[in-house]
Amino acid sequence: MKFIPRHIPVKTGNVYIAVMTEAAAHSFDLHEGDRVVVTNLRTKKKITSILEISENHLPDTTIGILTSLWEKLDLKRGDRIKVGIAEKPQSIQYIRKKLDGGVLKDNEIDQIVKDVVAEDLSNVEMTYFVSGCYTHGLNDKETISLTKAIVRNGERLEFKDKYVVDKHCIGGVPGNRTTMIVVPIITAAGLKMPKTSSRAITSPSGTGDTMETLADVKNDAEELKKIAKHCNGFITWGGGVDLAAADDKMIRVRYPLKLDPEGMLFASIMAKKHSVSSNTVLIDIPYGPQAKVKTVKAAKVLGDKFEHIGDLLKMNLRVMISDGKQPIGKGIGPALEAIDVMNTLENNEYASQDLLVKSYTIAGTLLEMAKKAKKDKGYEMAKEILESGKALTQMQKIINYQGRKKFCGVGKFKKKVNASMSGKVIEINNKELARVARIAGAPKDPSAGLWVEAKIGDKVEKGDLLYTIYSNSKEKLNNVDDFCNKDCAYTIKPKK
Amino acid sequence: MKFIPRHIPVKTGNVYIAVMTEAAAHSFDLHEGDRVVVTNLRTKKKITSILEISENHLPDTTIGILTSLWEKLDLKRGDRIKVGIAEKPQSIQYIRKKLDGGVLKDNEIDQIVKDVVAEDLSNVEMTYFVSGCYTHGLNDKETISLTKAIVRNGERLEFKDKYVVDKHCIGGVPGNRTTMIVVPIITAAGLKMPKTSSRAITSPSGTGDTMETLADVKNDAEELKKIAKHCNGFITWGGGVDLAAADDKMIRVRYPLKLDPEGMLFASIMAKKHSVSSNTVLIDIPYGPQAKVKTVKAAKVLGDKFEHIGDLLKMNLRVMISDGKQPIGKGIGPALEAIDVMNTLENNEYASQDLLVKSYTIAGTLLEMAKKAKKDKGYEMAKEILESGKALTQMQKIINYQGRKKFCGVGKFKKKVNASMSGKVIEINNKELARVARIAGAPKDPSAGLWVEAKIGDKVEKGDLLYTIYSNSKEKLNNVDDFCNKDCAYTIKPKK
Repeated sequence: MKFIPRHIPVKTGNVYIAVMTEAAAHSFDLHEGDRVVVTNLRTKKKITSILEISENHLPDTTIGILTSLWEKLDLKRGDRIKVGIAEKPQSIQYIRKKLDGGVLKDNEIDQIVKDVVAEDLSNVEMTYFVSGCYTHGLNDKETISLTKAIVRNGERLEFKDKYVVDKHCIGGVPGNRTTMIVVPIITAAGLKMPKTSSRAITSPSGTGDTMETLADVKNDAEELKKIAKHCNGFITWGGGVDLAAADDKMIRVRYPLKLDPEGMLFASIMAKKHSVSSNTVLIDIPYGPQAKVKTVKAAKVLGDKFEHIGDLLKMNLRVMISDGKQPIGKGIGPALEAIDVMNTLENNEYASQDLLVKSYTIAGTLLEMAKKAKKDKGYEMAKEILESGKALTQMQKIINYQGRKKFCGVGKFKKKVNASMSGKVIEINNKELARVARIAGAPKDPSAGLWVEAKIGDKVEKGDLLYTIYSNSKEKLNNVDDFCNKDCAYTIKPKK
Repeated sequence: MKFIPRHIPVKTGNVYIAVMTEAAAHSFDLHEGDRVVVTNLRTKKKITSILEISENHLPDTTIGILTSLWEKLDLKRGDRIKVGIAEKPQSIQYIRKKLDGGVLKDNEIDQIVKDVVAEDLSNVEMTYFVSGCYTHGLNDKETISLTKAIVRNGERLEFKDKYVVDKHCIGGVPGNRTTMIVVPIITAAGLKMPKTSSRAITSPSGTGDTMETLADVKNDAEELKKIAKHCNGFITWGGGVDLAAADDKMIRVRYPLKLDPEGMLFASIMAKKHSVSSNTVLIDIPYGPQAKVKTVKAAKVLGDKFEHIGDLLKMNLRVMISDGKQPIGKGIGPALEAIDVMNTLENNEYASQDLLVKSYTIAGTLLEMAKKAKKDKGYEMAKEILESGKALTQMQKIINYQGRKKFCGVGKFKKKVNASMSGKVIEINNKELARVARIAGAPKDPSAGLWVEAKIGDKVEKGDLLYTIYSNSKEKLNNVDDFCNKDCAYTIKPKK
């Protein structure tokens, strides 16, 4: 079947897409999502592509070729192409097996991950895989296979150090920027800590977003190796490197229904640690009514599973269960969190004590796990490193090596939220607080967010400041009004 | 967010697609598959669209607009557009519920089907729905809800007759063109039989394809009403009318993994009957090693379910279990089946006796169900109608009303397959026979296919003709050779 190619200027990464009319597809018995081999008849170059069907907009003798395929085939005006049917990738049968409740073998999971990375699976096919994993779960062996397959089929940063340290927090707590305190402490202690963080998806800021107000976070693998050599570590956004590439692609189809199949969650977290060679890892599981994990009991169950998976991966892994009932620190939103972090690293009068305590606890545990500190001496060592100013110096060094950025400051408009009555703060709704920060513009506007003054247990008088909202848009600040009730996100128990 | 629209010439039916660069999407916190409201700032017209992300090929200030959206928004060169975030359709939460194993309520299923028809659900979201139905099944109530929702949200052909007759065959048997014999008999008897058939997906021909060699099968609803008025019925392809539109769209995402969730299969078949007002239905379930249903036992189980669903829908429904071990009739492939059907309607010396017997059985049962024939007298009545020539006359009338086509004839190249030994035919592999017909070019080339001479039980001498393959391509005939072993698809038990 020979056709005239027509260039369609949409670039789709490594997914190669050809568009055929309904009539042509019907006459060749082809269906949307079928794989076809497209050959440039001048150069004889062949590329397997995914077929999309368009409603008779192009002539039947013409095939639309999206930019990535057009470039890969070196197509030029006047070229002719041939289209033939391609075999389905082998992994389709394994996806079907998982959807039918089967247990996948090591090589089967590897093939799926390979095809995901090669963009040989369509979104619909990947969705069936996610569905299968979600409905039937992944057993331990499958989880380990998936973890290893993700690492094997992605980029890696190799470090030969005996201890490569990492931490991970099962999110849901605003302002929880311990990473930016812990990495300076640990790397100042001479340990390797190559930390990749995510950006916000549904929160007002991820560590990637907060760090980005201070430094470049899109460093590539080469740069990261150099930074780690000079600074013992970094705080970067994972997306600049193709670590765990398969995971990023599968997240694309998990996003529409916000699905977190447990086995995939483990594999995703563990693969990211493995791909930067981490072997000494602390998992922080905050619990609270608005955190991802609601109760201590659920946190313990999840923690046990993490430890079990860690054992199977021969990783030195510990779990810490923490209080996720209220924000940690004072800032929420990229710039405001960055200010909070820098105050805390400086240990000045504005330093957030709760952020300090949590960071010492995490850093202390990691120092003990990596045999830098004796048992029960880690917390003290972490505190000493911070109080000596070494952690701050280390953070400045990391910022300089990643590429210092001009700080954007906080939003030019602000709005104070004051207590509507006198009494005691007994509850703070993290989700609502995060929503206020997002309505104010975070994380798209890094200057937007809020600064928390009152925490749970604080006694407040009527009119006392609970928190201040910052935004660069008056309209957005007004939108917050529409949303907020009195004491927005706060519950105050009145004085008797 | 204001943007410059750029037209991307791909037409996607009623799915409206806007393409944003990765960088722009990131800065607005948008993800692939998000719904956005696109507004033409000149006309203020707004359309909810699905967002696709392209890798920085367009400038960040430009948004690619696919043809359907471009036209719907009346966009012109120089226009500017605004993009805002749209709410997710409500049905997303019901899809999630099904995927979590929940039982969907009537209104929830209706909302999903409504959103499917309105193209408000992306392929990934529809895939999750199919996965949920596949893994957790649909109970009777859900199946009925789905059936009714598909009918409610699609086009309908209303007939007021007391009996509107229909038949359906659970495929897998080549050459099984009883529909084209039964419809002429039933309509000649004065009963209404508005028959919509499918085209081949994996077989060498569907009734839609076979009928199309004789008459137009793409008639729209208006035409079909007129044809039914004059002829009491028709034999058309369902795709020309938007009957069961939701079903067609869901089949799109079932296709890549060839998933047939049972509840969806029932709903699909029943909705198609309902949408043409059928109330008197015979379901033919052939069983055999290569049919969709393998054993009598499995056929009975499926039959019971059909009868149960029929009861719940207050449909007069009967099930017939038939032998699907070998082809019915002699022709396989569109034109060859049409020849076979016309010979049989003419009841001439080439008429296929097995096709006649099966057609009389089906038509007879339907005549009894619709009270045209007394109990056990239907078969005889069907036979009389055919033998009198009335069915043939009726078929010619239907062909003329649908729009007679010039018959293409059989392929100009042929190849005979002869018995390699003397003995008795004890098995015919339907799947292999179908594959031979497809390799020869069917159904793309309607002249391609084969003509079967020997059936199970026939005694053959070495060199006797088993079947003849027809094709318009010598190359394709040679391909058959590469594939065929001796006695291709036939098993002959040698004489002792």
